[in-house]
Amino acid sequence: MLDKLIKTSDIDIFATAEIGIETAKREVWKVEPSSTAKNCRNFIREIVDTLDLQPNPEKPVIALSIGDPTVYGNLKPSPETVKAVIDIIEEGLCNGYAPSVGYESAREAVAEYLSYDGVNFRAQDIVLCSGCSSSLEICITALADGNEGHNILIPRPGFAIYRTLAESIGVQVKYYNLIPENNWEADLQHLEAQIDVKTTAIVLNNPSNPCGSNYSEEHLRNILDIAYRHRIPVIADEIYERLVFPGKKFISTSSLHSGVPILVCGGLAKRFLVPGWRLGWIAVHDEIGAFEHIRKSLVSLSQRTIGSNTLIQGAIASIIQNTPQSFHDELASTLALHAQIAFERLSNARGLTPFMPDSAMYMVYEINLRHFPQFENGLDMAKKMMEEESVFCLPGECFQIPGFMRIVLTVPQDLLEEACDRIVEFCNRHYIE
Amino acid sequence: MLDKLIKTSDIDIFATAEIGIETAKREVWKVEPSSTAKNCRNFIREIVDTLDLQPNPEKPVIALSIGDPTVYGNLKPSPETVKAVIDIIEEGLCNGYAPSVGYESAREAVAEYLSYDGVNFRAQDIVLCSGCSSSLEICITALADGNEGHNILIPRPGFAIYRTLAESIGVQVKYYNLIPENNWEADLQHLEAQIDVKTTAIVLNNPSNPCGSNYSEEHLRNILDIAYRHRIPVIADEIYERLVFPGKKFISTSSLHSGVPILVCGGLAKRFLVPGWRLGWIAVHDEIGAFEHIRKSLVSLSQRTIGSNTLIQGAIASIIQNTPQSFHDELASTLALHAQIAFERLSNARGLTPFMPDSAMYMVYEINLRHFPQFENGLDMAKKMMEEESVFCLPGECFQIPGFMRIVLTVPQDLLEEACDRIVEFCNRHYIE
Repeated sequence: MLDKLIKTSDIDIFATAEIGIETAKREVWKVEPSSTAKNCRNFIREIVDTLDLQPNPEKPVIALSIGDPTVYGNLKPSPETVKAVIDIIEEGLCNGYAPSVGYESAREAVAEYLSYDGVNFRAQDIVLCSGCSSSLEICITALADGNEGHNILIPRPGFAIYRTLAESIGVQVKYYNLIPENNWEADLQHLEAQIDVKTTAIVLNNPSNPCGSNYSEEHLRNILDIAYRHRIPVIADEIYERLVFPGKKFISTSSLHSGVPILVCGGLAKRFLVPGWRLGWIAVHDEIGAFEHIRKSLVSLSQRTIGSNTLIQGAIASIIQNTPQSFHDELASTLALHAQIAFERLSNARGLTPFMPDSAMYMVYEINLRHFPQFENGLDMAKKMMEEESVFCLPGECFQIPGFMRIVLTVPQDLLEEACDRIVEFCNRHYIE
Repeated sequence: MLDKLIKTSDIDIFATAEIGIETAKREVWKVEPSSTAKNCRNFIREIVDTLDLQPNPEKPVIALSIGDPTVYGNLKPSPETVKAVIDIIEEGLCNGYAPSVGYESAREAVAEYLSYDGVNFRAQDIVLCSGCSSSLEICITALADGNEGHNILIPRPGFAIYRTLAESIGVQVKYYNLIPENNWEADLQHLEAQIDVKTTAIVLNNPSNPCGSNYSEEHLRNILDIAYRHRIPVIADEIYERLVFPGKKFISTSSLHSGVPILVCGGLAKRFLVPGWRLGWIAVHDEIGAFEHIRKSLVSLSQRTIGSNTLIQGAIASIIQNTPQSFHDELASTLALHAQIAFERLSNARGLTPFMPDSAMYMVYEINLRHFPQFENGLDMAKKMMEEESVFCLPGECFQIPGFMRIVLTVPQDLLEEACDRIVEFCNRHYIE
């Protein structure tokens, strides 16, 4: 018996010697992670951790970096959303296992919710997942195979998790550029040039994190035409679906009847303000029957972790149906107002170019680093802004666009104003002609 | 634009021709799943589906196959569990993202919950996951690498998900036998003989699904000694931890201070009767510091899907602390009573040998197929039992032991009695000397 091992790095040899184990096949404990584990990186964390952020103790910190709309408490889920879950808990009928793809009733509710603008989803097109990250994980895993040398196309700038998910399973990512001056539309030529015989999916994120862009029908058609010509299915990350500013219209990829088979990823997180509840979905849009095998794969892959929380699944029909349109309108108006405020204030900063968003919860601004020669780069500037102004913006490096920064628009208005003013002061103080 | 595609299998060629696309790189849509998707199989489903089950319309169906304790409504979570979640929802502070490994307070609560019998977990040893299946997935993915030809050892009979999770990522499984006559203890010689240089983990499931065995300290030490000698870490699936019958004692692998680095998997599912809530955990037990890299891997891998539902995380401390011991005692007594009833009744069936469990929610019985020559095998017998008696037991094939069947003990007592009586009648009717 090995009761009394002490914690020391050479314990193995010690123990082996002391207790006289003869049959040791390996002399030392060497527990190495798999390549999947090693390749599973959090790129944002890696970048932010290197900054060793130290705020100015004289000023309260305002984090414009956290993509969680609930963090300041000013944005809350609707009372209908809260009530729906309480009702389900009290009813006591949703504590057991659901099918790994979700309750039929919950899938039906999501199918209805996504059926607009001429799109008609059925319950069997929906796979419920533990958050939209799980949805994306399952889609990427289903479509791309690291052992086959597959790659997927992802937007630059774009959300880091696509790369995390792909590279962890040995799938390469290839970036297609978005053009800031063109409302962050994809550079179509560049996109098409990235496609090769090993490309098995194009990830499209509309509305976009970090850009807050909302693509026109024409632009979406242009992207889908490329996908169609090359026979590449699309993973449409539409987690910000219909979260567009007043007067704008969201166009879903499915509504364009492009013929391209599309896995639409979404969830309750953003539009219903409950990201922690981990209720995501995949909606299979496949007009040409190309996804017959992929549908089965989505079911199989969902069985690895047996889906999402059943309380939220039980509540989802009520959440979707009873949350009034005014709730969504108010959220959109707030975000639009915050965007307007941030845009106007940041426009006063020398050396910054803010890009006005149309949707989602973010705004990106460009830094003209030529005018800030005292900063090594955007990362350094973000670090110094924290040190002097206690305001932290996520550097563009986190989204593969150095020279830019992303701010979140979900913070309370007074904090947003204060933060923007501090950014302006910081820039104007350091700007060199 | 490709607006009007119709759904037909040769649509591709048709569309390509009609709209005159010149640059098509691939002529047909051929969307094939990845090897991970293809290798991700639900073995139980595959077996059960082949049976094409048809109950006897004269008799109401009693499913003794479903490993969900909540399914008949007789076993419910404690009022304290329900209240804890309602409180959290009403409070409204747990709607946002938690750290991917879980709230610090929730990890702390789980660490305390698992700290008994001389074991001392800390919050930083705990990773919360979306159900125990996710815990197992993360552990297997961290420790075993399909590209390196790794294998893991899993028990036979055993829960099918280990194989599903391993094979989907290209990791081989090798079985070690459990000995029915010996309270389903592992055949130690057989276990040790399975180990090779590519073995990177031993999965230990105690208490066991399907066996309902509860290993003695000595037997656990014997297994851990083998793991230690060969320097193989253990994945201890302890989802039925402390769910042992009155008078029995559960021994956790961690409490033995074996020196073996262990990833303990567990969750609220069984002991708190809320499997649908998807709150699982990994507890890292590592006395010799062998898991330094693995700890980081668990964090990295948790970031792929960003953890478990935050409402349950917020409630977990109250759930664990406020659910009275009497609740756990009552559940254990009920299961023990049901086991006793099933054992006594099934002992009256000719050609069956029931094995009395000590723990968990299941009982296994052996079929002496020599006395049932009219059935091709156990699968056929299970099918015919459904057809004649409307009772369905999960065939041993689902757990890699043909010739056995598993029943669940969580059904209401009257149904269990009725089902056992029907099994007895069925066997006695078909038994041939």
